[in-house]
Amino acid sequence: MEKIEHIGIAVKNLRHSNILFEKLLGTSSYKTETVKSEGVRTSFFEIGSSKIELLEATNKESAIAKFVEKRGEGIHHIAFEVSDIWAEIKRLKKEGFTVLNDAPKKGADNKWVAFLHPKAVNGVLVELCQDDTGSPNKTEENGI
Amino acid sequence: MEKIEHIGIAVKNLRHSNILFEKLLGTSSYKTETVKSEGVRTSFFEIGSSKIELLEATNKESAIAKFVEKRGEGIHHIAFEVSDIWAEIKRLKKEGFTVLNDAPKKGADNKWVAFLHPKAVNGVLVELCQDDTGSPNKTEENGI
Repeated sequence: MEKIEHIGIAVKNLRHSNILFEKLLGTSSYKTETVKSEGVRTSFFEIGSSKIELLEATNKESAIAKFVEKRGEGIHHIAFEVSDIWAEIKRLKKEGFTVLNDAPKKGADNKWVAFLHPKAVNGVLVELCQDDTGSPNKTEENGI
Repeated sequence: MEKIEHIGIAVKNLRHSNILFEKLLGTSSYKTETVKSEGVRTSFFEIGSSKIELLEATNKESAIAKFVEKRGEGIHHIAFEVSDIWAEIKRLKKEGFTVLNDAPKKGADNKWVAFLHPKAVNGVLVELCQDDTGSPNKTEENGI
């Protein structure tokens, strides 16, 4: 694990929350992006060498919609940057963690991502993420 | 706001969680510390330029005990490093945020800290923190 890449925060209204987090962080969102497969619209803020990612659900089946319905707005996940996501998935499975997707999938911000089940991490939803630099291992094994 | 200084995670059993997070992060906790005034025992892990802070309640009245009872273990707060905590408190109050303690108080890890009410930050408990370098403004105004 290299660093905290970002913290994901589930919000109800991205437009309102963008204004709120601009005031909080004293900087503007540098990117908004929709990840159709995950049913989310995202907005990113830089803070030091990390980011804040705001997530708004785009449909009722989205994990973010369900999270907000159950627990309200708030911190949804922590994402750690890794240099080799396949190796990290293997290592963490050996250590007893439950990886929700064995094969990395394409996330926002041009990343390959995998999630660990929060039940085995003290209630914390952990995301592993790696920049999509076209690693042959990844594309061959993943088939995406 | 300079960077994400740390993410605070509420846990039930610090000894067990230390082992868990050592496995997760691939590094050992570098410090444990009790903050008697807050009713918590903490443990810190370095990850890039940020930290993970595990928090275990030391009594039932502790905010961490109440959080765990209500929501279970999980992410409790995000702490942002600031270079002038008094100026940030003033700025954020002007922006409409509710600061829970107008005068910074002494937190773990030799920091001056202040918290923002989560209701005005999309359910996120935000901590501002500044290294205790003995700023005269701070000690004069705060009287701590």
